[in-house]
Amino acid sequence: MLTKTINTVIAGLVLLSGFAIAEDVHVNNDIIPLEISNNAVLLRERALLDDLSVDIVESLTTEVGPRRVGTEGDKRAIAWAQAKFKELGFDRVWTEEVPIEHGWIRGDANAEIVSPYPHNVVMTALGYSVGTNGDLVGELADFPTLEDLEAVPEGDSLKGKIAYVSYSMADYVPQPGEPRMAGYGKGTQARSRGHVVAAKRGADAVIIRSVGTDSNRYAHTGSGYGYEDGVRKIPAAAISPPDAILIQNMMKRGEPVVLKMNMTSKITGPVRGANVIGEITGRSGSDDYLVLGAHLDSWDEGTGAIDDGAGIGSMMAAAAMIGQMEQRPNRSIRVLLFAAEEIGLVGVRAYYEEHKDELDNHILGAEVDGGGGRAHTLISGVGETSLPIVREMHKLVAPLGIEWSDANDATGASDMSVLGRAGMPALNFMQNSNDYFMYHHTPNDTFDKIIPEDMRLITAAYATVFYVAAEMEIDFRK
Amino acid sequence: MLTKTINTVIAGLVLLSGFAIAEDVHVNNDIIPLEISNNAVLLRERALLDDLSVDIVESLTTEVGPRRVGTEGDKRAIAWAQAKFKELGFDRVWTEEVPIEHGWIRGDANAEIVSPYPHNVVMTALGYSVGTNGDLVGELADFPTLEDLEAVPEGDSLKGKIAYVSYSMADYVPQPGEPRMAGYGKGTQARSRGHVVAAKRGADAVIIRSVGTDSNRYAHTGSGYGYEDGVRKIPAAAISPPDAILIQNMMKRGEPVVLKMNMTSKITGPVRGANVIGEITGRSGSDDYLVLGAHLDSWDEGTGAIDDGAGIGSMMAAAAMIGQMEQRPNRSIRVLLFAAEEIGLVGVRAYYEEHKDELDNHILGAEVDGGGGRAHTLISGVGETSLPIVREMHKLVAPLGIEWSDANDATGASDMSVLGRAGMPALNFMQNSNDYFMYHHTPNDTFDKIIPEDMRLITAAYATVFYVAAEMEIDFRK
Repeated sequence: MLTKTINTVIAGLVLLSGFAIAEDVHVNNDIIPLEISNNAVLLRERALLDDLSVDIVESLTTEVGPRRVGTEGDKRAIAWAQAKFKELGFDRVWTEEVPIEHGWIRGDANAEIVSPYPHNVVMTALGYSVGTNGDLVGELADFPTLEDLEAVPEGDSLKGKIAYVSYSMADYVPQPGEPRMAGYGKGTQARSRGHVVAAKRGADAVIIRSVGTDSNRYAHTGSGYGYEDGVRKIPAAAISPPDAILIQNMMKRGEPVVLKMNMTSKITGPVRGANVIGEITGRSGSDDYLVLGAHLDSWDEGTGAIDDGAGIGSMMAAAAMIGQMEQRPNRSIRVLLFAAEEIGLVGVRAYYEEHKDELDNHILGAEVDGGGGRAHTLISGVGETSLPIVREMHKLVAPLGIEWSDANDATGASDMSVLGRAGMPALNFMQNSNDYFMYHHTPNDTFDKIIPEDMRLITAAYATVFYVAAEMEIDFRK
Repeated sequence: MLTKTINTVIAGLVLLSGFAIAEDVHVNNDIIPLEISNNAVLLRERALLDDLSVDIVESLTTEVGPRRVGTEGDKRAIAWAQAKFKELGFDRVWTEEVPIEHGWIRGDANAEIVSPYPHNVVMTALGYSVGTNGDLVGELADFPTLEDLEAVPEGDSLKGKIAYVSYSMADYVPQPGEPRMAGYGKGTQARSRGHVVAAKRGADAVIIRSVGTDSNRYAHTGSGYGYEDGVRKIPAAAISPPDAILIQNMMKRGEPVVLKMNMTSKITGPVRGANVIGEITGRSGSDDYLVLGAHLDSWDEGTGAIDDGAGIGSMMAAAAMIGQMEQRPNRSIRVLLFAAEEIGLVGVRAYYEEHKDELDNHILGAEVDGGGGRAHTLISGVGETSLPIVREMHKLVAPLGIEWSDANDATGASDMSVLGRAGMPALNFMQNSNDYFMYHHTPNDTFDKIIPEDMRLITAAYATVFYVAAEMEIDFRK
């Protein structure tokens, strides 16, 4: 109610001031009608003053916390999401079950260097790793990158050893043309395949330096989901950056570094997750809808505030604010909270299988899964004919300091890119992800890392452009 | 050998350039003779280029690591310190045993919120706390400060509860006239006395929000050393700042917050530490000496890089560089590495008892125990008659961006303040300690937190002024 009152007050001020807001930002009203662009600006300004997105993250991280798929936390998260959608006035709310082949128990992960100098090491199991079955002791065989490990011929030359991929995302300098965080992709290679590559060379386990940009004494977990048939299942773990630096300094002294590790992690039988969907139902009665995505699951060490509470908060809030306007938007807007993103986009793949016949009804999609950092660039992935309209939509967010990218190759990001690559048009705000790669997948991913002004900005940006897309009869298809 | 060559080269350049360096920094050579001020400037410039202090911290943190008094790590540290002094060319090296009434085993510390929402909590035992003897479950009774807890009348009103002091150093705003980090002292009140105050009101345990300025998910340990006779010994622990914020958010919802904790820490029988002393023996043969201090022990979760590896590195390096000059200084310089600072300045108190009859021989003292942060101000604690000389000494470090403080109330800092308050003249460089209070007493106090340029600066600063003090026949006494 309050929000409607505020809208009315601002609209009144606009009328009194005697000029159309949209002119002020130079929107071409032959392309976006004046009433729609005016409403979009009012919505944007209101969103910039509203902490709804932050409050949603606070609620999720406080009342639910960690929510790895299949855990009790995930079940609480599914119930929380449904209740939150209803509380926020979504018209339809439902879940779609996602079967997962295996569950996983993290257990404990302890490690210490036993030689040349005794030290505790902060280590965490990579997702879906097997345990060590008691103490596992081995000399570290250091490989600067996964490629260096792959260069070792298959066989048993690493027998009795622990393969160690010491690649540092923090130290990676992007090549010309590479995105700023290109080092992440390189790091995830060892994280997702190191256990298979190392096992084929006889290693007893694989350890990686955490894939992150920070220098905090946390290990970043992540998915090593999936052993290869016929290849020995060896434990996979990550160690913290300071411990990686310590080991590097030890190795400089020329003596073998011997690690003892003990992990009680365990793969279990099947579990179930669920995609949770909330809809603001459009007034046109059309079967088409816009989709805003985030993932509901998180890793299990922090409370999943930036990964992906920030996405849930901003997308739920953006749609809710559109829903709180004087009338329902023309087209429906669905918020898709996907299950099991962290173990390999499992929830969205189930969604795709279920909904591929209606892919054409997905008019436009986006996902936030890079934290709540400042939005800096709008990038589209739409048909040529709708580009002039998207350029006008950009003018509505340009006052937020958001640039425009001509690349037109957006796919929706993270989960949503599965749909984007299958043909769904997409619109994404690129964000500053510096903080994200310091905290994500660690115990340090907690609510205090959320920066409210950045969350308000990303929420305002998505609310603005998706409101316009929902109001107008635009075909974004390629 | 290399260093002597460099000195010679620089000295040669100075001679060729045809002017006295000291004139360049406006030192009054009627007060500090030209040769001494020239040598001081050369020493300063050489120290700014030399990573010796950093290398010492690297050696200590890599080869020894955590070294809480009485542990195996502490024994390794004592051996390491003696070997390092010898390697660095100190003329005399010895240890002085320090008996400690009790040892302590940290054990494990696990905690979780069981209601209203289940959550893991990152907790650490405060030093010398008793354990919980199994699971201890209690509702948190929140007190904003220790004073608020003290305001509860003694008795059993907190029976069955866990007293929780939620004071946040990070949020404390210093009052006019208070030093920037005044919030630390306020935080340590609950850390050092909370267990006694809470027990007198019937609480089963006391928990504090970590005393630190960071927002990382580590609990800062620290000493709660010493239970009071006749008062029930209750467990004392600290929780991480993000967990404190989580609890605060839960409490806003109005429901009781119930914590389950399990700590296996244990107080043991007596242990022994040692003060380790290295001396650059002066050429004068006088019984007088200058003292540079740091503490050898550390807490047991990180590797004690900033607390107090930084002090050990800078003080050992400053004295070693003076010792590497063409001739021994006039007066002796001793580096005192104290035992058991972290549990209440125990090593320096033993030192004082042993050496109080020679306190007059301690011509001037200083300690670094606030990390390796940038030195910004020189402050003296000397007799009025020597103030003009100290002011000239300051001119030799002013080009490093170091200010002068007129307060003349320095006592040497940390351990050394025990001697300073007993009458020893002191000279201290105040340092930026922002980083220090983010990392100290946590697993995150590791070598990668050392900033080499700041370490070179503090080392250069102490080397410069203590070289002058060692060369001249100054009586600094009050």
